[in-house]
Amino acid sequence: MISSLAGKRCLVIGAGGFIGGHLCDELALAGAHVSAFGRRPRFPSSRMPDVWFEYDARNVEALRVALAGTDIVFHVLGSADPTASNYNVSNALLETIAIDGTIIDLCIAQQVERLVFVSSGGTVYGPAQYLPIDERHPTNPLSAYGVAKLCVEKILQLQKQLVDMDYIILRVANPYGPRQDPHRGQGVVAKLLYRAMLNEPIDIWGDGSAVRDYIYISDLVRAIVAASTAKLSLERTFNIGSGTGRSVNDIVTAAEMLLVRRVQRHHLSQKSGMVSANVLDCSRAHAMLDWHPTIAWHDGLSQTLAWITGYYGPLEDRSRDEPVA
Amino acid sequence: MISSLAGKRCLVIGAGGFIGGHLCDELALAGAHVSAFGRRPRFPSSRMPDVWFEYDARNVEALRVALAGTDIVFHVLGSADPTASNYNVSNALLETIAIDGTIIDLCIAQQVERLVFVSSGGTVYGPAQYLPIDERHPTNPLSAYGVAKLCVEKILQLQKQLVDMDYIILRVANPYGPRQDPHRGQGVVAKLLYRAMLNEPIDIWGDGSAVRDYIYISDLVRAIVAASTAKLSLERTFNIGSGTGRSVNDIVTAAEMLLVRRVQRHHLSQKSGMVSANVLDCSRAHAMLDWHPTIAWHDGLSQTLAWITGYYGPLEDRSRDEPVA
Repeated sequence: MISSLAGKRCLVIGAGGFIGGHLCDELALAGAHVSAFGRRPRFPSSRMPDVWFEYDARNVEALRVALAGTDIVFHVLGSADPTASNYNVSNALLETIAIDGTIIDLCIAQQVERLVFVSSGGTVYGPAQYLPIDERHPTNPLSAYGVAKLCVEKILQLQKQLVDMDYIILRVANPYGPRQDPHRGQGVVAKLLYRAMLNEPIDIWGDGSAVRDYIYISDLVRAIVAASTAKLSLERTFNIGSGTGRSVNDIVTAAEMLLVRRVQRHHLSQKSGMVSANVLDCSRAHAMLDWHPTIAWHDGLSQTLAWITGYYGPLEDRSRDEPVA
Repeated sequence: MISSLAGKRCLVIGAGGFIGGHLCDELALAGAHVSAFGRRPRFPSSRMPDVWFEYDARNVEALRVALAGTDIVFHVLGSADPTASNYNVSNALLETIAIDGTIIDLCIAQQVERLVFVSSGGTVYGPAQYLPIDERHPTNPLSAYGVAKLCVEKILQLQKQLVDMDYIILRVANPYGPRQDPHRGQGVVAKLLYRAMLNEPIDIWGDGSAVRDYIYISDLVRAIVAASTAKLSLERTFNIGSGTGRSVNDIVTAAEMLLVRRVQRHHLSQKSGMVSANVLDCSRAHAMLDWHPTIAWHDGLSQTLAWITGYYGPLEDRSRDEPVA
């Protein structure tokens, strides 16, 4: 059992991403020795890890070196766009399983204390048979990304039985907040706020009624840190979300309130691999990880918009995709 | 919708195995044009397909050629021993997903009418939370073999959503019957009857109380053929088993009755990756495929023993592993 992160050697795989960057900060605050693996972040914080393994996760030798002597591994590798994984299902699966399988094998070989695996509450369940979705809900993903995450979850469960590997799976909702890149496939909140700030039309897939569970990034990384030291018995899979569903239209309306002006909507045809509603029941995490989200929706949006405005400048009525120098 | 197999071009992938061989016979009886893919069978029947693609399933080009012009593909590739897959979990998964992913991609590209996928009712569910196990039971496999089968099932479900691929999944119980190789890892019935016939001690993992669902091979291949033409709506996953649990001790007792003598038991320590009980609830297949097993347990065992005795000779008190020339 891991009682505290103070002095623990933590490796964050995918440290350059949105979740990874914030997680590195939170781990450092908790007194951990943090190493990072992956590309450098686009939006670095002031608390970047000193040790950075700047390699592709397909590089097995680099992973092996990075993992040596690590106490706790945080796997927060994600995807720019889950729906893109459907263009070549087999390849997407094989690539993910090769990388994640290697990480798991190395964690076992190097006797890591725990692997914290960030899975996807938005994709592993597929179409909701009921709402909110708890961890016992059937898992029928509508994207290769979701199938791959699910498959890795099954490998972890199996390795617990075979070699008593210590893992925890967090099925996280859609994170949003400062330092989320508004130009990538994921991150609808960042993208909408950025476009709204620019006073540009907002692309909406379908009629904008698709409901998602959005979790503020600081709430999410607190959950990940809690997961890394939680005492676990039977249950090792936890939903991490706000527990509240918000439609794309809700985000646009909120953006209009924050900006005090109308936003133009541009409706596109529905994408494949999307479910109509996804809201997570997180009562298991509340009870067993003693974790609760604390940031209210409008506060989270407001802070996100403040960061976007601060970073990209108070731009009006112009179209540019690069930050102000 | 496929109304009849008469004149249909069927490809059996894994035709050289126990299930594949019997399936080729049954398809030929149903009037299909049968092609075979894979190694040649160890125990050929009198009704072998004329067209035989004798290639490894990792050979993508060979699969592509074999699949060209096929109406219905039967995927009955299995494993000699699911527990062996746990020696290298990642490799076992990657190999299976590479092969099965290719087969699925080719079925889509060549617009095959239906892919009949033989999955594993004995491994995809993992530890039984209730008995008998229906198709809605949680899936937490205890072997990489089971994880791989489950992952392929998820790919099929996904491709139905993405490109309307027509598939059916059969989660089959433990098949037994004539022409099952008594010298391979799978096939406990054949192995036990063979050893009992030789009057040799029988190796039993654990105390022999492990319960499995055994399905006679002719019942199984009738189910596979029914699945190939069944009209399907929402449900595409079906358990195929006898619905009755038998322990290893039950098999030994039955063998003693058939042979009219005592059999020596040799108990070994429990293998990993094994569940204590697995019995399938097949009521969905009864209702929607109009399929019911017809061969009684003792008749099936008796016919299996008759084949073993006929093939290996009426041997007594000697140890030999090769058939009589």
